[in-house]
Amino acid sequence: MTNEINTLPQGYTFRRLKVTDYSNNYCETLRGLTTVGNISSEQFEDLFNHWTSLPEIYRPHVITDTNGKVVATGMLLVERKLIHECGLVGHIEDISVYETEQGKKLGIYLVTSLAKLAKEAGCYKVILDCSEENIGFYTKCQFKVCGVEMTQRFSN
Amino acid sequence: MTNEINTLPQGYTFRRLKVTDYSNNYCETLRGLTTVGNISSEQFEDLFNHWTSLPEIYRPHVITDTNGKVVATGMLLVERKLIHECGLVGHIEDISVYETEQGKKLGIYLVTSLAKLAKEAGCYKVILDCSEENIGFYTKCQFKVCGVEMTQRFSN
Ligand SMILES: CC(C)(COP(=O)(O)OP(=O)(O)OC[C@H]1O[C@@H](n2cnc3c(N)ncnc32)[C@H](O)[C@@H]1OP(=O)(O)O)[C@@H](O)C(=O)NCCC(=O)NCCS
Ligand SMILES: CC(C)(COP(=O)(O)OP(=O)(O)OC[C@H]1O[C@@H](n2cnc3c(N)ncnc32)[C@H](O)[C@@H]1OP(=O)(O)O)[C@@H](O)C(=O)NCCC(=O)NCCS
Repeated sequence: MTNEINTLPQGYTFRRLKVTDYSNNYCETLRGLTTVGNISSEQFEDLFNHWTSLPEIYRPHVITDTNGKVVATGMLLVERKLIHECGLVGHIEDISVYETEQGKKLGIYLVTSLAKLAKEAGCYKVILDCSEENIGFYTKCQFKVCGVEMTQRFSN
Repeated sequence: MTNEINTLPQGYTFRRLKVTDYSNNYCETLRGLTTVGNISSEQFEDLFNHWTSLPEIYRPHVITDTNGKVVATGMLLVERKLIHECGLVGHIEDISVYETEQGKKLGIYLVTSLAKLAKEAGCYKVILDCSEENIGFYTKCQFKVCGVEMTQRFSN
């Protein structure tokens, strides 16, 4: 399996999430994916600190544009299992490219980069869940359909 | 969404994994699901201690029979997200019922119990990935198909 990665537009950067991304379009970028709600800076910092305290598990990343503004988001979560000789599995979560930045190959760069990080972390595989409409995109990122995602939602 | 749980056969118990389950059919039960490999007691303890040090994230459970022997395994992993107002998502992983114990409603008890734990932990949903052949089983556990699982495997 090759992990060739395309290049980003000039001046764009792929990097780990920073606490200052709260006021740098991070939540707004995620709104393209699903409901986010009102997240206060305290809530964000609390979550950021939790993720940062577990750096081998939570690996949140972003792509920023020429102005340093967040334009794409993606999480790599690394799970320690017993199966596969105490194997590690990477989970790619919450991929979103800001609406006006879609179609510039940021998505493929992001997903391929997170998969590469999973490989470097020693994972034997990386998985993700997506809707039928996005199979084509993830196929271009070198993923293959391997199963079905099922859910149970709680009203609480 | 109701979370009614069937009853276990008399003398069977649903409980959190213990370190002593290493020599109590835990790995053998997981072998019904996939490759496990040779796990030494040191490797098991190391993993068990890692899981135990992160009790809100990793919630490994088992069902034991009348002799206290592990006959079913299941993991609930709780992920902290930003989306859905800093929501929690439960991931059900590595469900396996020991071959000779299948068909006794242990599977449905296990999955329903893990889903209930996810709800009690405050998750807004619980998800799992499975093969087409198991959709019927998880439908009986009150799960609905909601997406596609995709993977990239590494040869390392
Ligand atoms: C889906 C998404 C992540 C793709 O990112 P993007 O930066 O717009 O996509 P890219 O420019 O990197 O596209 C890479 C390739 O995939 C193709 N592609 C993009 N979206 C596609 C789709 N939904 N189906 C099929 N192909 C797709 C592109 O045409 C491109 O093909 P090419 O290399 O042959 O030109 C992005 O559009 C997005 O965030 N959408 C809204 C939120 C979302 O759906 N997230 C994923 C949830 S599972
Ligand atoms: C799949 C598995 C977890 C089911 O557990 P189980 O204890 O054998 O199942 P239960 O006795 O709790 O079955 C509950 C109900 O689901 C049904 N069921 C079980 N497996 C099913 C399947 N594959 N497809 C459709 N229905 C199924 C049962 O008939 C029963 O229905 P009923 O309540 O109407 O009588 C178990 O057989 C197993 O571990 N298999 C091997 C490993 C595996 O495939 N794990 C899941 C990976 S995604």
